[in-house]
Amino acid sequence: MSSNEIAIVVGAGAGLGNALVARFADEGMRVAAVSRSGGAGEPQRDLVRRYSCDATDAKQVKEVFERVRGELGPPSLVVFNVGIWDRGGILDISADLFEQAWRTGCFAGFLVGRAAATSMLESGGGTIIFSGATGSVRGGAGFAAFASPKFALRGLAQAMARELGSESIHVAHVVLDGMIAREDDSSETLLQPAAIAQSYYQLHRQARSAWTHELDLRPFSERF
Amino acid sequence: MSSNEIAIVVGAGAGLGNALVARFADEGMRVAAVSRSGGAGEPQRDLVRRYSCDATDAKQVKEVFERVRGELGPPSLVVFNVGIWDRGGILDISADLFEQAWRTGCFAGFLVGRAAATSMLESGGGTIIFSGATGSVRGGAGFAAFASPKFALRGLAQAMARELGSESIHVAHVVLDGMIAREDDSSETLLQPAAIAQSYYQLHRQARSAWTHELDLRPFSERF
Amino acid sequence: MSSNEIAIVVGAGAGLGNALVARFADEGMRVAAVSRSGGAGEPQRDLVRRYSCDATDAKQVKEVFERVRGELGPPSLVVFNVGIWDRGGILDISADLFEQAWRTGCFAGFLVGRAAATSMLESGGGTIIFSGATGSVRGGAGFAAFASPKFALRGLAQAMARELGSESIHVAHVVLDGMIAREDDSSETLLQPAAIAQSYYQLHRQARSAWTHELDLRPFSERF
Amino acid sequence: MSSNEIAIVVGAGAGLGNALVARFADEGMRVAAVSRSGGAGEPQRDLVRRYSCDATDAKQVKEVFERVRGELGPPSLVVFNVGIWDRGGILDISADLFEQAWRTGCFAGFLVGRAAATSMLESGGGTIIFSGATGSVRGGAGFAAFASPKFALRGLAQAMARELGSESIHVAHVVLDGMIAREDDSSETLLQPAAIAQSYYQLHRQARSAWTHELDLRPFSERF
Repeated sequence: MSSNEIAIVVGAGAGLGNALVARFADEGMRVAAVSRSGGAGEPQRDLVRRYSCDATDAKQVKEVFERVRGELGPPSLVVFNVGIWDRGGILDISADLFEQAWRTGCFAGFLVGRAAATSMLESGGGTIIFSGATGSVRGGAGFAAFASPKFALRGLAQAMARELGSESIHVAHVVLDGMIAREDDSSETLLQPAAIAQSYYQLHRQARSAWTHELDLRPFSERF
Repeated sequence: MSSNEIAIVVGAGAGLGNALVARFADEGMRVAAVSRSGGAGEPQRDLVRRYSCDATDAKQVKEVFERVRGELGPPSLVVFNVGIWDRGGILDISADLFEQAWRTGCFAGFLVGRAAATSMLESGGGTIIFSGATGSVRGGAGFAAFASPKFALRGLAQAMARELGSESIHVAHVVLDGMIAREDDSSETLLQPAAIAQSYYQLHRQARSAWTHELDLRPFSERF
Repeated sequence: MSSNEIAIVVGAGAGLGNALVARFADEGMRVAAVSRSGGAGEPQRDLVRRYSCDATDAKQVKEVFERVRGELGPPSLVVFNVGIWDRGGILDISADLFEQAWRTGCFAGFLVGRAAATSMLESGGGTIIFSGATGSVRGGAGFAAFASPKFALRGLAQAMARELGSESIHVAHVVLDGMIAREDDSSETLLQPAAIAQSYYQLHRQARSAWTHELDLRPFSERF
Repeated sequence: MSSNEIAIVVGAGAGLGNALVARFADEGMRVAAVSRSGGAGEPQRDLVRRYSCDATDAKQVKEVFERVRGELGPPSLVVFNVGIWDRGGILDISADLFEQAWRTGCFAGFLVGRAAATSMLESGGGTIIFSGATGSVRGGAGFAAFASPKFALRGLAQAMARELGSESIHVAHVVLDGMIAREDDSSETLLQPAAIAQSYYQLHRQARSAWTHELDLRPFSERF
């Protein structure tokens, strides 16, 4: 069944992005791995095709979804996994930085989510997953430029879930509440990308009689 | 690996309880199915042993955990799935009903959770899952006797998760946000017990580098 | 206008309880100060009458509301301010302690809230305020016996607010997120009882076109 | 005491904006009423000076704060009350509309909040209040372009509160959970601007030993 399925991972360059791409391909899905750079340096593997796209650019997002559709087919799973890292005290955040953090962390999610919804409404359903963070549910001191876009993305995900659920489109938001391990660090006290990818894949496989909209993921040792 | 594992389901008599028991046994776990009645009328099956226990009675809970431990071994998975259904306007709720709803919906959960934690701290870890409901996160009009114990159970689950996580005990709370289908009703617009059981089993299998404390489950068509 | 108004404060013995009683009397309300001991040692003052009641006893709560009604009149403001302090690791909490914490922290609140609602439905409206705590919205490690009843009380308050709002009964829940100062400690880094009492009184005075159900209160210096 | 105080209301043109300006002036504060149009048509009154500013423009926000400071003095109270109204299904929201809703609903709030914080860190403290909405805490179907900026503003407010509290700057977020009445409609089933303004003023007057970060306001008859 998976062999005919297409997944698109936007934000495929980072540790988690790579793990998602690998996991979906391991399950037999054909995967479009989308990143700003196009992932030229990444190893090639079966079932995975790499695409370059600036996800904050409406035109580029539209085009990459059209290209994937033409080359692989319509996606049944789309993950928005573009990370942001901007921190700083409120006086230290420039207007440009605040805007850029939103553009990368939320606006790109809107463009990707809208493109995914457009395609899935036509093809009859699918799964859209947004990667959240601690800052999605808590605005901590020094995190204004991080939490604000992350809250914004969560509000978008909720509205999409409520609008699209009855159209058989499953919209989920994952709160990644901890640091994600680098590829060479197998410590269980960090979020392991492969373990995260497992939960993403399971979200996609949930029967539509029992869908999850939101779940948190954190290491067993994490304070929360 | 599952073949050496023991699961205890408290509240094994209802539709979801049966589905949890069946699923864990399907995975090769030996299952103690605990209910008030003892499930005398339920079909026998391999790997499942039925126990009778009033989960609101501290002594009985202690004894049934000891019996299971003696007969099957120490559990690595314990589910508290005892349901409550009490409704009514605030003036219509008697003090007895309010107390009984808490006793069944929360106090029993404390007794079961404490017994599970005691055993798992000794055996080196495990998973404890509490079944929640819409009323766990929203006190609706006419739901005082339902929401209050469900909130209470959620507070307990959070405190246990934060205390026990670093001891390799995974405490999760599942918000079942919809009506659960009866056994003869396969409608996807209701929560299907087998689909719920899938998510419970997956919670148990999560790597400890990426544990979920709380997730919601609802039919695709549910308004929320 | 206040001169004809009656307030009942249940849990009038502690620092905050005394401050609430004083504040309402300062505004010209006649105040029934209800505590387990009856506050025999407290100084007498105009407009304040002291009552003894075990708020966890359904019969006593009913009787004290009837006595106040007979002696002062029907209340337009009722505050449930009975505190709990039980802490401990999950294995250290006895069944009796867990039950007693709920009985004091939530069941008493139900009895008081139901008596208040009964009276206010008859008299045409009023305000019911429940004192919450950090543990009302967060179950911390070592706080199972505290957070569980506090969550339970919050669920009750929500359900009552949604049921009784259209009957002109304003139900509010105040999250006291910090340590309350003792009477001889005027530090602004602690919650000052008089400052808390100000917000309670203002909740009572809100026009019914703009009611608050929940607010938090914490010192400016508190981490949250 | 109020006679030496300066308030700035950004978003002073609408029904609530006018009520806030009027209330603060009634209390003896000198008020800078800031709106895009400058409120040329509004009646003049003592203590109120009107300013024109596009709050989404970083330069204009900086300049208007400097002008107010020069003409009135440093503000001890700043309210960000710029409303947004954008609705629509996810496929009907253009990238421009989604961006504009964020620019008005959140980015302007950042510019105003940062300017207020800059001034208050220098002058030794003050109050910053952000107007939220139902969509600040719930992303409803058809509300993606509304909820996303409102969530974003809430995340910003939380981060600012946690960063600035210990500097004696009180940051609050008010969830306006209902429709606000027009000026000629005195129905209590709608949020009355004067009643809302009462709570805003009280937030400003809270002692710093007991600050509220978030409260909700809704008509008594509102379902929630």
